Amino acid sequence: MDRLSLENPLFATYAIAASLMILKAVAMSWLTVVRMMSAKGGFRSPEDLRKTPLNPNPDPRQLEPNERVERIRRIQLNDLENLPFFLVAGLLFVLTDPSLTLARWLLYGYVVSRLLHFAAYFTAQTHDVRATFWTIGSLILIFMSGWTLVAALGG
Amino acid sequence: MDRLSLENPLFATYAIAASLMILKAVAMSWLTVVRMMSAKGGFRSPEDLRKTPLNPNPDPRQLEPNERVERIRRIQLNDLENLPFFLVAGLLFVLTDPSLTLARWLLYGYVVSRLLHFAAYFTAQTHDVRATFWTIGSLILIFMSGWTLVAALGG
Amino acid sequence: MDRLSLENPLFATYAIAASLMILKAVAMSWLTVVRMMSAKGGFRSPEDLRKTPLNPNPDPRQLEPNERVERIRRIQLNDLENLPFFLVAGLLFVLTDPSLTLARWLLYGYVVSRLLHFAAYFTAQTHDVRATFWTIGSLILIFMSGWTLVAALGG
Repeated sequence: MDRLSLENPLFATYAIAASLMILKAVAMSWLTVVRMMSAKGGFRSPEDLRKTPLNPNPDPRQLEPNERVERIRRIQLNDLENLPFFLVAGLLFVLTDPSLTLARWLLYGYVVSRLLHFAAYFTAQTHDVRATFWTIGSLILIFMSGWTLVAALGG
Repeated sequence: MDRLSLENPLFATYAIAASLMILKAVAMSWLTVVRMMSAKGGFRSPEDLRKTPLNPNPDPRQLEPNERVERIRRIQLNDLENLPFFLVAGLLFVLTDPSLTLARWLLYGYVVSRLLHFAAYFTAQTHDVRATFWTIGSLILIFMSGWTLVAALGG
Repeated sequence: MDRLSLENPLFATYAIAASLMILKAVAMSWLTVVRMMSAKGGFRSPEDLRKTPLNPNPDPRQLEPNERVERIRRIQLNDLENLPFFLVAGLLFVLTDPSLTLARWLLYGYVVSRLLHFAAYFTAQTHDVRATFWTIGSLILIFMSGWTLVAALGG
């Protein structure tokens, strides 16, 4: 069977997890937009102070950091530090032909860990809660890449 | 036919769009370098104030933010928030065997939207212009990932 | 032979280089954690000042930038500007069926250039040293993407 066919349950598992993570990452951009619009601030470029239909009453304070916007930017930066690597590590991992059960646990486990990380960060839970969910995802990422490395070196 | 052969027009479309976007992303790094060199500033690390062939007359003000450099950094950060996800979403999308016409519209449309976003940001057009081009790309990304997710869940 | 099998030496070369780069990127996150823990500072979120088992004696100064932590964050940001694009460019490059020798030089050369860039940045070598290693990696990235683009356009 074609390894990259969605009829291959390993690849379908990856495609589902990857698509969810991409949509999650894109959602952070839109959430930043929503919060900038509702705060009418948290902008970053000088030209964003020009009067436009989306910003009818410009004010220099709109360029000051806004904590509600910065929070989403921190979450998004955390995504950038993790998700692109997961997207490639997950693909390489399923290409090593692991068991479907293991792949589902790791790939869907990663997705769940990142959604919980988002929930903890978004609602400003204490650091240790957020760090726990981040750690779970990071360990899955390390495991998958280490697994692929061993398989590739031994292949 | 091999799905990942450049003789497969769907994959070739992806490879062209992906290569252009990678080269675009790398160009942002070089543009940052060019602007740091021409401004002789906008540096970020304390050691960048040491006297070297590339920096014969160090000055502490070289570590202050330089708007011409910061503008490229903001463009690059926007790339980081978008392009890595496009690169994976686009690959997964063409692997679902969409029509070649649809794939060309979406993948090349994304490339064009990002080049126009760059042009608008680089020349400091009003926010609404830049936001429009960003939105087109983001919607293409969401569409491709949603399409893949539906295909993978139904497969 | 299956192009994406680890028995294909081109793909195995890519899988090894990609896994090493992913592990390197993840290591930056952990190094940031280690330095934040040892400095008991360099935090970024207001909620990180709450008293928890990992932060028994909170202090507002913990939210101030800490240079030892910021250095790793700058290294990590440099990774984010480079590695995700390498991960896709490298895969597309090996899918164009280059010679194994060329692929090994470019892919392993990239890995070495990034490890040397890390070593130079981590130990605060002068800018020109760090820039040299960055440039080598960036040129490899440009070469691989240009190669793929030419192959895809001519295919």
